[in-house]
Amino acid sequence: MPTLDEARAIIAGALAEARRRGAKPLAVIVLDAGGHPVAFEREDGASLFRHDIARAKAFGALGMGSDTRAIAERAAGNPAFFTSVVVASGGNLALSAGGVIVRDLAGAIVGAVGISGDTSDVDEACAIAGIDAAGLNHGANS
Amino acid sequence: MPTLDEARAIIAGALAEARRRGAKPLAVIVLDAGGHPVAFEREDGASLFRHDIARAKAFGALGMGSDTRAIAERAAGNPAFFTSVVVASGGNLALSAGGVIVRDLAGAIVGAVGISGDTSDVDEACAIAGIDAAGLNHGANS
Amino acid sequence: MPTLDEARAIIAGALAEARRRGAKPLAVIVLDAGGHPVAFEREDGASLFRHDIARAKAFGALGMGSDTRAIAERAAGNPAFFTSVVVASGGNLALSAGGVIVRDLAGAIVGAVGISGDTSDVDEACAIAGIDAAGLNHGANS
Amino acid sequence: MPTLDEARAIIAGALAEARRRGAKPLAVIVLDAGGHPVAFEREDGASLFRHDIARAKAFGALGMGSDTRAIAERAAGNPAFFTSVVVASGGNLALSAGGVIVRDLAGAIVGAVGISGDTSDVDEACAIAGIDAAGLNHGANS
Repeated sequence: MPTLDEARAIIAGALAEARRRGAKPLAVIVLDAGGHPVAFEREDGASLFRHDIARAKAFGALGMGSDTRAIAERAAGNPAFFTSVVVASGGNLALSAGGVIVRDLAGAIVGAVGISGDTSDVDEACAIAGIDAAGLNHGANS
Repeated sequence: MPTLDEARAIIAGALAEARRRGAKPLAVIVLDAGGHPVAFEREDGASLFRHDIARAKAFGALGMGSDTRAIAERAAGNPAFFTSVVVASGGNLALSAGGVIVRDLAGAIVGAVGISGDTSDVDEACAIAGIDAAGLNHGANS
Repeated sequence: MPTLDEARAIIAGALAEARRRGAKPLAVIVLDAGGHPVAFEREDGASLFRHDIARAKAFGALGMGSDTRAIAERAAGNPAFFTSVVVASGGNLALSAGGVIVRDLAGAIVGAVGISGDTSDVDEACAIAGIDAAGLNHGANS
Repeated sequence: MPTLDEARAIIAGALAEARRRGAKPLAVIVLDAGGHPVAFEREDGASLFRHDIARAKAFGALGMGSDTRAIAERAAGNPAFFTSVVVASGGNLALSAGGVIVRDLAGAIVGAVGISGDTSDVDEACAIAGIDAAGLNHGANS
């Protein structure tokens, strides 16, 4: 949970949205609720850190219990604390939108999606499109 | 290279072989020639280390320039050295069959596959089935 | 790719430019497209971190798909995010000019050069001189 | 110390010996007495871990004050201790011949050479040939 089938649906939906938008090549990861990878794909041409950044967005969302958009906004006002969390977590937090918590229809956290490759706004929009395509929920208050 | 399409074909072929054999749940990763992830899938029920072991098999094959079956055989006769390589490489070497180098039709290394979840013999057989299914070559002397 | 001969030509060209300019002692590294070292030289008198900084400039350029001059400029406006990338990448990103992507004549990324020792402007100028001397291309839009 | 010129002479001498012998592609590193890289070259076709293994051979020789041939022999009789040293040193010790201490003509340690790529005997022979070619001394009792 998410099942591999759900993770595949999330990635397929995210990449379909990316191609509709003409986004730069993306890396997309789906983690389970424990932060462990379920599925990952890197589009041809995406640069080498995209995997690590996507994973750190998804893991960071789970780690703080909040999408990385909100975490990044809080970090802008308190960078020293969030830098200390980045280091304390072993680099498992990327302070940029594009890490989105995945919830089941009852609202329980089942995992997270992380995307890196384009602007953080595009990354996040593709993550949300993927979660929608898989018939799951997203967001802190979904 | 492998392209994402090739990596997907490798994973699909490996998991089809796993289901034909009734294998335990597997994790399958495809790395590019530099050791960076292109695609990954973990079947439902696979335990948490399967990702890390699969990655360390694939990376270790690239790192030593040999499938991990041959590396593991050499390690049995010289465990202290291979333990030191495991540490020197930052854990990027798993001493068990199931890490297989992927070559293009001209014999050039284009990446590696790593699989973990069942016995190392089954893991390796599924990796080779996946490479075959994608129309690529494997093995040091292919 | 770059071949060892090309990497030697890049380093020789970079250090020749450094001596023409009377630069401080430099460390120069050439990485392949996967971020693995091909060749390295540290001039007498260069301090101990120069190797690590040069490598983190070159690796960071590959990791983000952009010369470190552009990355450093973006980091000035968003330091918390780029600090999180530094940690997520295991320290493989130095936020200063002097990491330059190397392309072949068709524009494909074949590796990167990283230089540390003088100001970042001088470091970068020597990196570009080295790439030019080797008959290769540089820059995101070359 | 070794100077960059000396390090270049060591590498050139080592690779000349390797080509005379028809050795597999090698990675050769020269470290200063503090264990910091002075120069490195990886021949085309050498696999990805050769850098890390060569460095761990050279650093390990300095770390224990002995060529890695002798360290590996001691490790065979006491693997648990040497494995603990491998981990305690952060992976800076490879338990295989091919790490050779470099001494000046007065016998003082000035650095170390590490080579990886062929058998440990060939690696070590090339390291010694390189030190000889540079007009320096090697060995614990030189």
